[in-house]
Amino acid sequence: MKISLLQLNPVVGDLKGNAQKIIRGIQEAGKEDPDLIVTSELALLGYPPRDLLLQKKFIEESWQIAGNIAKDCRAAPPVLLGLAQPNESAVGRPLFNAAALIDNGEVTHCFRKTLLPTYDVFDEDRYFEPALGAQILHLKNHTIGISICEDIWNDRDFWNRRRYQADPIGNLAASGADLIINISASPFTVGKQQIREKMLGSIASRYHIPLAYVNQTGGNDDLIFDGRSCVFGSSGTLIARARSFQEDILTADLQCTASNRISPADFTPESEIWSALVLGTRDYVYKTGFTSVLLGLSGGIDSALVAALAAEALGKDHVLGVLMPSPYSSTGSIDDALALAANLGIRSTTLPIKPIMDAYDAVLREEFAGCPQDLTEENLQARIRGTLLMALSNKSGSLLLTTGNKSEVSVGYCTLYGDMCGAIGVISDVPKSMVYRIARWVNDQNQRKVIPEPVFTKAPSAELRPGQTDQDTLPPYDLLDGILYRHVELHESPEEIVKSGYPEKTIFQTLHRVKAAEFKRRQAAPGFKVTDRAFGTGWRMPIAAKEWYAD
Amino acid sequence: MKISLLQLNPVVGDLKGNAQKIIRGIQEAGKEDPDLIVTSELALLGYPPRDLLLQKKFIEESWQIAGNIAKDCRAAPPVLLGLAQPNESAVGRPLFNAAALIDNGEVTHCFRKTLLPTYDVFDEDRYFEPALGAQILHLKNHTIGISICEDIWNDRDFWNRRRYQADPIGNLAASGADLIINISASPFTVGKQQIREKMLGSIASRYHIPLAYVNQTGGNDDLIFDGRSCVFGSSGTLIARARSFQEDILTADLQCTASNRISPADFTPESEIWSALVLGTRDYVYKTGFTSVLLGLSGGIDSALVAALAAEALGKDHVLGVLMPSPYSSTGSIDDALALAANLGIRSTTLPIKPIMDAYDAVLREEFAGCPQDLTEENLQARIRGTLLMALSNKSGSLLLTTGNKSEVSVGYCTLYGDMCGAIGVISDVPKSMVYRIARWVNDQNQRKVIPEPVFTKAPSAELRPGQTDQDTLPPYDLLDGILYRHVELHESPEEIVKSGYPEKTIFQTLHRVKAAEFKRRQAAPGFKVTDRAFGTGWRMPIAAKEWYAD
Repeated sequence: MKISLLQLNPVVGDLKGNAQKIIRGIQEAGKEDPDLIVTSELALLGYPPRDLLLQKKFIEESWQIAGNIAKDCRAAPPVLLGLAQPNESAVGRPLFNAAALIDNGEVTHCFRKTLLPTYDVFDEDRYFEPALGAQILHLKNHTIGISICEDIWNDRDFWNRRRYQADPIGNLAASGADLIINISASPFTVGKQQIREKMLGSIASRYHIPLAYVNQTGGNDDLIFDGRSCVFGSSGTLIARARSFQEDILTADLQCTASNRISPADFTPESEIWSALVLGTRDYVYKTGFTSVLLGLSGGIDSALVAALAAEALGKDHVLGVLMPSPYSSTGSIDDALALAANLGIRSTTLPIKPIMDAYDAVLREEFAGCPQDLTEENLQARIRGTLLMALSNKSGSLLLTTGNKSEVSVGYCTLYGDMCGAIGVISDVPKSMVYRIARWVNDQNQRKVIPEPVFTKAPSAELRPGQTDQDTLPPYDLLDGILYRHVELHESPEEIVKSGYPEKTIFQTLHRVKAAEFKRRQAAPGFKVTDRAFGTGWRMPIAAKEWYAD
Repeated sequence: MKISLLQLNPVVGDLKGNAQKIIRGIQEAGKEDPDLIVTSELALLGYPPRDLLLQKKFIEESWQIAGNIAKDCRAAPPVLLGLAQPNESAVGRPLFNAAALIDNGEVTHCFRKTLLPTYDVFDEDRYFEPALGAQILHLKNHTIGISICEDIWNDRDFWNRRRYQADPIGNLAASGADLIINISASPFTVGKQQIREKMLGSIASRYHIPLAYVNQTGGNDDLIFDGRSCVFGSSGTLIARARSFQEDILTADLQCTASNRISPADFTPESEIWSALVLGTRDYVYKTGFTSVLLGLSGGIDSALVAALAAEALGKDHVLGVLMPSPYSSTGSIDDALALAANLGIRSTTLPIKPIMDAYDAVLREEFAGCPQDLTEENLQARIRGTLLMALSNKSGSLLLTTGNKSEVSVGYCTLYGDMCGAIGVISDVPKSMVYRIARWVNDQNQRKVIPEPVFTKAPSAELRPGQTDQDTLPPYDLLDGILYRHVELHESPEEIVKSGYPEKTIFQTLHRVKAAEFKRRQAAPGFKVTDRAFGTGWRMPIAAKEWYAD
């Protein structure tokens, strides 16, 4: 049996555009003469469609278009197409998350998703009613078990704790499936593909059934889909893999595996995150209708890495770096920023902010009479810079990139409406220590100092007052990132983190900062998710709340 | 039988503070010698606790504190206490949404919630496993059916379409319940209490069982809880009602109803929204640790209403109005803003922005050489004002209120990092036409022109260029609000809205604006929910998406 996996990059809501992509994919795959062609989850709508699912006419329109796809591909092999099926019952949520079988020019049947993830960035219980019973497709003497994404993430042996009572894959095996298909839209996080392949292989081998897994690719808002669709033989061996972080059509023969393609996948964290952020940036910019970006260049490591990512994603001619020195900016920082721009080949411009600082000071002089300088004046500089960048963005039609990293976003070491300005937080889920690692990796890959060496070696500083460094306010980044990992990703309390050997006072100060910065993060730009728990859609904390562990 | 309802205002996460409130409430209620005392849903944690529920130690700590409450209240009548119960099973979500029975100094049993709302602002499927089976409390020869919030919102007769298969209230009645208790944390929306009372009365009467409903009060972030706990006799008649928008302890006798209290409730929309926003503002400010606020006063209706709300919520001495005239500001607007401040008795200050506009122009002159003036220059003014307000906020430790209304937030007629600056959107869920109605109601209530008459009669304008009015860009607000209601609250598509008689071109332009403003709203301050569908936690739209109905 031969199966073709359509690993496509849909635009959410773009029914016509996605349909065109799918039709072209079917035609392309058809040349290999497969027995079945499979798209990723909700491929026609783009994943995640979120509240578009509440618009009835959107669903109706999608079914008309599914019908058109069926007609257009009448001559093609059978296709499993990811879409949302209305729930005709008078009770329950309005839709099913489904895979429609397209055969002989018609949509003939729908297979439904059983397990509806509702944690982290997932919200499927909001929209979908679960399937009841095994979803089996009989095709050419084969009994094919159809599962959708989460259905395969609840294996009783692979996980310590299962989230759901139901075991859809066990049910498919018990129903005599001789092939399991999983159509997914599984967002990237660092190291996830290794877990996927381990889990999928273990399921294939335990049930002695080959398994074909198709994933979406591309960036949709905060989520980046890495593709890497793959097929396992009944022994649990990987017998085919599609490309990483790009569209691909993979046809695999389940019996004669010799000519199957196994595209390489680089699991180095630096490489994975780089590839994800390049794809995420490119798709966010293009899918929102822009072609160029700008960003502030401070001479620091964060803006250096984001500039390098943007140049890779969009081409160096579509990136503008803006230097906005104040009287507190060091000549080193200005030199480093200019050298970086030159190394990347991007345009740069310099707008000194001193005259604007003076104008604000004059207007506020009477109100602030007798008050000592404090954070207010530091925030003012950041907000002047944010306002200048937005003015350039407005005038030029370029999209502003936000350059804050996860460590500073966690503890609020950033200015709302200042350096937090921008449409997308490119590295807002990358901890500072990983920012350094990826930047070093960039230089290694290029075999030259794209990012100037002083950017690595000088003490990190916001340069908002004379002689300031980040570590005046924050613990060393390695320590900070360790505490943040345990709190943000593992939900640990202070007393649990103490057990890992971190100093108690630093833990309490850090967690207090995380809590106090909640109001800033609520107004932050969306940021690309690369860790198991990013701020944004997967982090839903109250603001006007009290720390239960305080006192 | 006598039952006491503790309608309290908890702080989310403040286990100790909430416990103190609950203990005082139990002591107070105990004086009436009730048979049972009942708190609202998750009262110990504060609703909604959101991702605090993922912190295991938070739950452990809450159980220790529940034990302390039990010991402290050993002499009190039995208490039903809203909290989260760990799910000890190896499968399923980590918690139950529960009501713990406290009796004789101990937590003796937990009753669990069956229906877990996961729509609009609700996210309970993320955290909770549903109850299985009827939750019955046997007490003094009574068979009491225990239900939690959503459990009672799925009646087969009351609703056209039910969301869930299960019917917990039907099960309680079938299990012989002679009293139904519902512990809730049901957020306010306009007109909701009338629906609640109609629904609760109809359920009581159909099953011929009295029904006691206890609701939370107070504001927690975007959600405002209106209290108005109530009790219905077995004929469906309202026999007791607690106060609106404030804490209350209501003891009701189910048999001898004559001495029960039925507090009045004003269902006028203007009055309801006013009371909700006063409570929401007060709680947001105090619960985030502030005591005073500031806001920009433009001379327009939005900032006038927000200033009046703030003065009512916090006292006139805790509100600062800031005038920031530009060369485009009319003298009328300045006069109106000053008159408003005088009428309210709040402080005001005036910071002309012209010198700062000039400073930006000078810094940007070279970059912008040859470019005509456009939205960039208008946004600059708004961002200068936002930056000044934030500087005052930072320096004074006052919280900045955002004054945008729902109509402009819907279509993006507002500047990100400009007039959108602020910690909380006080009227961001109030359509412009309702802003006028409430403002008029304020003057009527005060029997004087608190809000100066020209504010009502002049054409609304952002005054960002000479002679500008809102209607240069937008359709008349009555028309706009009608279209927005059908699209935002009812999820209607353009072709459905056309059927209501609105002009097609205006509909498409409006919906395109709503879509295009998604990126702004994602970075908006939280705003108080007063309609059935507010932006914020109950609106989850993709940004980098395509309009499916375009072309």
